[in-house]
Amino acid sequence: MIYEMDWFKEITENATGVLYRITKKLHESQSQYQKVEMFETAAFGKLLALDGAVMLTEAHEFIYHDMLVHIPMLSHPEPKRVLIVGGGDGGTAREVLKHRTVETVDMVEIDVEVVEVSKRYLADLACKLDDPKLNLYIQDAIEFVHDKEDIYDVVLVDSTDPIGPGEGLFNRSFYRDVFNILKPDGIVAVQSESPFLLGREVPQIFTKLQSVFPLTRLYWAPMPCYPYGTWTFTYCSKSGMEPIIRRTDEAEEIEDECKYYNRKIHQASFVLPNFIRKLTEGAN
Amino acid sequence: MIYEMDWFKEITENATGVLYRITKKLHESQSQYQKVEMFETAAFGKLLALDGAVMLTEAHEFIYHDMLVHIPMLSHPEPKRVLIVGGGDGGTAREVLKHRTVETVDMVEIDVEVVEVSKRYLADLACKLDDPKLNLYIQDAIEFVHDKEDIYDVVLVDSTDPIGPGEGLFNRSFYRDVFNILKPDGIVAVQSESPFLLGREVPQIFTKLQSVFPLTRLYWAPMPCYPYGTWTFTYCSKSGMEPIIRRTDEAEEIEDECKYYNRKIHQASFVLPNFIRKLTEGAN
Repeated sequence: MIYEMDWFKEITENATGVLYRITKKLHESQSQYQKVEMFETAAFGKLLALDGAVMLTEAHEFIYHDMLVHIPMLSHPEPKRVLIVGGGDGGTAREVLKHRTVETVDMVEIDVEVVEVSKRYLADLACKLDDPKLNLYIQDAIEFVHDKEDIYDVVLVDSTDPIGPGEGLFNRSFYRDVFNILKPDGIVAVQSESPFLLGREVPQIFTKLQSVFPLTRLYWAPMPCYPYGTWTFTYCSKSGMEPIIRRTDEAEEIEDECKYYNRKIHQASFVLPNFIRKLTEGAN
Repeated sequence: MIYEMDWFKEITENATGVLYRITKKLHESQSQYQKVEMFETAAFGKLLALDGAVMLTEAHEFIYHDMLVHIPMLSHPEPKRVLIVGGGDGGTAREVLKHRTVETVDMVEIDVEVVEVSKRYLADLACKLDDPKLNLYIQDAIEFVHDKEDIYDVVLVDSTDPIGPGEGLFNRSFYRDVFNILKPDGIVAVQSESPFLLGREVPQIFTKLQSVFPLTRLYWAPMPCYPYGTWTFTYCSKSGMEPIIRRTDEAEEIEDECKYYNRKIHQASFVLPNFIRKLTEGAN
């Protein structure tokens, strides 16, 4: 059977857009929260889209997950208890569970449909969602983190964009709750959007985080399947610890398994081009 | 008068593509070598396309030009004589002429149409094309560099892609001529395509350069208006000089004027993620 070739299109800010040639639409559903779509692309493996926005392609997800996870995890001296906010596709959990120190991972995903569709179609991402160390909560993370204290070593905010179901995950009140749920030497990393976005999401997110955490550092990586092809992450420490590697041996092991992360990239990804540095300085 | 809105589309490898909303088509012509188009985009200033491939948008050209020029120029102890291959839009010449050491810039562009259209529509790029230090040759650079020796301190290869009129600028014989035309401590930087290209252009280019120059280093930067949003450059030294800053005071001045380049980025841009490092290692 030959499927008709077509192009999946994501438009950003009514100014630019990205096309992917797809060979098959594998899934489409309207969950309680969003439209969930899975495509087979011609060249980049499967593509997951939520409300029309590309969440990942199998070809390029390694960059996002390496950088969201290994930078904060290896900057912590001994991350035992980890919270993942969102991350329903499983890629973040997969990377977290590579760290030998980890005892428990709590993952709070609002949309069970994302988890189920990922388990069905994204075996390489969802491979650890049934791991005995992982507790999956299908729940709004805003409720989950509220009024809890001193629980996690590392929190990873693997959210969608600041519209739709993910919107509340960009509020200062949520960041305040994340601060409280961290242990005294806790670290959080959040996906913090593209530095090229005309809506200037990066400084908005960075300012809020900076108003909550004593130490806030932006880092970045290419991400060809996200708008403008470059993405930022923000690292925050509750105790003021800089994002340097604190477990050198494990960093070496992790690096060997990674297609993106290595120990030099750990440092280099915090070096900001002038225009990105200015996005963070507007916060002061 | 209201112009009809439309989208400019560039398809890459029949797998992905980028769209730009345009508000006006300013120019279209078929030169002796290629189709030359200029658009007004809705959000990124003017857009120059050659044979349907985006060469630049005014909003994002600063990254490419900062990185192609300032990395090699500031790695040279005293660049007096510079050759630009291609670069008809003028952006590379503009950046080169910021360096106080420069006495002469020879620029060899094959297509006079690109120069003329850029002078008409891209004032911020073409602003130095009439500079008294600049000699503009409308000529095929392959002929220009052939059988010349020991002339330039720095050569910058600001070419189109390895198809169409730019194809010969990716041949080993051209690189050999560039080697010869450099002075003994000369440096060349070439645009060396995207690390995400399925055609694996990066290792092909890198291998050839490595077979000619004793020291070859890949570096990279985001480039939202090029395919996959990330681009590489290759730095080569005829004498084996590493790409470190050799004029610190001038680097500080240049950095103050740049939106992308700074002294820390100079170093960090040579730190390669694992998958890009592998593209260069295949060369051995």
